[in-house]
Amino acid sequence: MSDQRHDARYQARGVSAGKAEVHAAIDRQDAGLFPGAFCKVVADELTGSAEHCIVLHADGAGTKSALAYLAWKEGFPLATWRGIAQDSLVMNLDDCACVGALGPYLVSNTIGRNARRVPGEVIAQIVAGYQSVCDLLTTRGIRCVMTGGETADVGDLVRTAVVDSTIATRLRRDEVIDAARMVPGDVLVGFSSTGQAAWETTPNAGMGSNGLTGARHDLFGADYRAKYPETYAPETTSELVYCGPHRVGDPLPGDPAFTVGSAVLSPTRTYLPLIAALLAELPRSDIHGLIHCSGGGQSKIVKFGAAGNRYVKDASFAVPPLFAAIKEATGMGWAEMYGTYNMGWRLEAAVPAARAEACVRIAKGCGIEARIVGRIEGGAQGREVAVTTPDGVATYR
Amino acid sequence: MSDQRHDARYQARGVSAGKAEVHAAIDRQDAGLFPGAFCKVVADELTGSAEHCIVLHADGAGTKSALAYLAWKEGFPLATWRGIAQDSLVMNLDDCACVGALGPYLVSNTIGRNARRVPGEVIAQIVAGYQSVCDLLTTRGIRCVMTGGETADVGDLVRTAVVDSTIATRLRRDEVIDAARMVPGDVLVGFSSTGQAAWETTPNAGMGSNGLTGARHDLFGADYRAKYPETYAPETTSELVYCGPHRVGDPLPGDPAFTVGSAVLSPTRTYLPLIAALLAELPRSDIHGLIHCSGGGQSKIVKFGAAGNRYVKDASFAVPPLFAAIKEATGMGWAEMYGTYNMGWRLEAAVPAARAEACVRIAKGCGIEARIVGRIEGGAQGREVAVTTPDGVATYR
Repeated sequence: MSDQRHDARYQARGVSAGKAEVHAAIDRQDAGLFPGAFCKVVADELTGSAEHCIVLHADGAGTKSALAYLAWKEGFPLATWRGIAQDSLVMNLDDCACVGALGPYLVSNTIGRNARRVPGEVIAQIVAGYQSVCDLLTTRGIRCVMTGGETADVGDLVRTAVVDSTIATRLRRDEVIDAARMVPGDVLVGFSSTGQAAWETTPNAGMGSNGLTGARHDLFGADYRAKYPETYAPETTSELVYCGPHRVGDPLPGDPAFTVGSAVLSPTRTYLPLIAALLAELPRSDIHGLIHCSGGGQSKIVKFGAAGNRYVKDASFAVPPLFAAIKEATGMGWAEMYGTYNMGWRLEAAVPAARAEACVRIAKGCGIEARIVGRIEGGAQGREVAVTTPDGVATYR
Repeated sequence: MSDQRHDARYQARGVSAGKAEVHAAIDRQDAGLFPGAFCKVVADELTGSAEHCIVLHADGAGTKSALAYLAWKEGFPLATWRGIAQDSLVMNLDDCACVGALGPYLVSNTIGRNARRVPGEVIAQIVAGYQSVCDLLTTRGIRCVMTGGETADVGDLVRTAVVDSTIATRLRRDEVIDAARMVPGDVLVGFSSTGQAAWETTPNAGMGSNGLTGARHDLFGADYRAKYPETYAPETTSELVYCGPHRVGDPLPGDPAFTVGSAVLSPTRTYLPLIAALLAELPRSDIHGLIHCSGGGQSKIVKFGAAGNRYVKDASFAVPPLFAAIKEATGMGWAEMYGTYNMGWRLEAAVPAARAEACVRIAKGCGIEARIVGRIEGGAQGREVAVTTPDGVATYR
């Protein structure tokens, strides 16, 4: 299926993949102290210190919560909801870690629910999920403190549950990792999104919290369309709703240790302890950029670095079974798959070649496979990414 | 109609007014440095200063956005959406000001939208609305800085738009207004939610951002139920959906300067410049408590202050026309009206009697009518509030 055809599928499902419209709406806002950094960094208005800066960052689990709801109704344990809190929080934390922030972090959650669909026992699991990520990270030296939040009963707005969070942290300005410093000659080290990190209790299938609307509808089918109308927009053409081959409990093709549902619901891995280990061992000035391959997948990096940078990724990880299953179900081309999903590594670092081996070694110590996935060349018009996929090179600008 | 009957109406509309279920879910979380303060205050983890503390606070416009959507579709100007950003932000800011925080404030917004219903031009208005509140307050010496945010296309979760925000601020611990200090002998000064404050460009009908689900469905009717199914939960019994007498453009009974729609959509007034003026002129130690009469309306104060406090409010403001119209449309009793809506004052201060006159005078300088609405007595079991309504005394525990 062509990418144009897939753009139309996105829009028919109410998702503007590129968010061009939204970016146009907010373009007038200033870009902060480090316009080239992975996320917005602002002056330390809280203390007035000219040597410090603040990151106040918001993100959420997106439509992954609609799948958690469906899976829970289909018999997945109540604790499935804990993973949604982890998704919401880690999507935030890992963005912040990409600018070099290592906490302490203050966390506030914002939950909007349809109280008739999502009872208090679910809210309790979500709150417990936030707390357990905070506890885990704090135990590993990355202090993370829940400050409370808001749970609103807004059934007239929300079909099931929206699970968002906002975190605040502060760091020295001279500690900021400014991805604008990514330069030709750097190598790109990718850090696996699958396997089992030292701080995880079960293997992870590699999913983050983006691309869920498409994956969910194209992977799952059966009678879900009729059974769970509360999990999709009624405006969506019905052929695009739960039009896939699987039930949530089906074994994942290629890795029967997962069900398809548990694979897609794998709680987003936090790379924070790994990033902390990298920053503890390597000179910060040698970490030219850290990229969280979230929305936009392997094309994410194209937004960062000097004009003229060409990000050549010609040694990708093998495609994890979950992403192979999504490709099979969606009929997406490789270019769109790599431009949507992380395809095996949700974090990458741009470092001088001499530092690559240390990155791989430090990751191994964290139970995370790492490899040199590519390098930065110069001479591009603007910036571009060229990813070698199993079927040729996909280019993003 | 009895209160029991109305509780059932709430629940049938998917709103658990008392949020007991949610509170049970989060009860294990600690209450912060000042358990009796109006909102949670935590240690200053960002700098480690033992003399300072942080408030990281989340709230949103609730279902007021569903009414903005409907009114916009019915011909209200696009700029109506700016008010929703103000609602979201002020619900936060005024909570924080009640613990004595006067900024600088850092603001992050979280918008979840159904992209097919809510286009980029609406997002642009919401973002502009946030910015203009920040600009207004900054001009008045209360620095307020947008740090960005997240706009997610989550049509499978959100029917129209969810407009939430989170703010971070820091203050000295010895500056915290701890509502636990409210004592018998204090008088309660109420500050009007209507009229036109010095920083407002049009009169305000007095609405905050709570109680909107009920007000919206009971005030408005006509063909909205059939025309705007995207503005309510399909699970709601249809007799409870837009079962009221008005169109959004009808003149407000009792005050034809407003339409019913524009009255309900009055952007939540910020009391921040008034609170700043109070704290500038009066000794902070004499402001025993500041209460933002949001969810729970005039019963809100019952959650705060020493055990045994009896809050006697026997000199309420005259009922503003908007709340009279809501009462008429909903058939609610006075006790429930005062236990849901602010009924004329969305802020009250507990101060020694000798300070009451100054409060009234300072408010007048801000263009806000104020009056002694009551006093604190002792001897209650637990805490209780007794509000004199146009039809007898309503008691809340």
